[in-house]
Amino acid sequence: MTAEEFINNITHEIFKEAYDYYFKALPTPIVGNDKSWVDSKELYHSLSERQRLQMQTFTKLVIQDVVSILLGKIDNISSFANQDGLFELSINGNVINGDLQDYFLMSMDKLKM
Amino acid sequence: MTAEEFINNITHEIFKEAYDYYFKALPTPIVGNDKSWVDSKELYHSLSERQRLQMQTFTKLVIQDVVSILLGKIDNISSFANQDGLFELSINGNVINGDLQDYFLMSMDKLKM
Repeated sequence: MTAEEFINNITHEIFKEAYDYYFKALPTPIVGNDKSWVDSKELYHSLSERQRLQMQTFTKLVIQDVVSILLGKIDNISSFANQDGLFELSINGNVINGDLQDYFLMSMDKLKM
Repeated sequence: MTAEEFINNITHEIFKEAYDYYFKALPTPIVGNDKSWVDSKELYHSLSERQRLQMQTFTKLVIQDVVSILLGKIDNISSFANQDGLFELSINGNVINGDLQDYFLMSMDKLKM
């Protein structure tokens, strides 16, 4: 698996398992005991159509930022204060980190088309 | 850096650079040309205090899910359909993946206290 294939997999997985899941499940009836999920559903149910679209936009922004921060650290673009040395991510002995954040931002741009 | 230290760093960084940043910046006046950000601010400004707290809860949920999905893949808890072999994340030659998702979920539990 190349770095680009890894990122395409990650982007697909996160959008299927998180983003798509949220906006399929949020409109369903508010049941269950998970407070975070009940709160999120109550919010969604109380919003106008316009606000719901804005919530989708904000959710994409959060996903993009969070993945980007994490990949930037694995890419060694910036280091933690207590970091000594560099990260290396490999699969089958092939190193794939270095440009993961760039590939991810490109894959997000494609999603917006 | 141990796996636990890496995760504590990641959790701290993501909450400072994303979560804390959002909820400091969203209440400020709606200016600028970034459509995603303008939409997100318009949403926030249109919400009641109760809805704003629910938006914070939903944002934490998104962050937790997204980081957890990504770390689960790096931990080799589940594989991609086209994956051949296992991921290895190391720093200074020390392998740190395997329990990253667990450490992250524990660090999120601590944040809720």
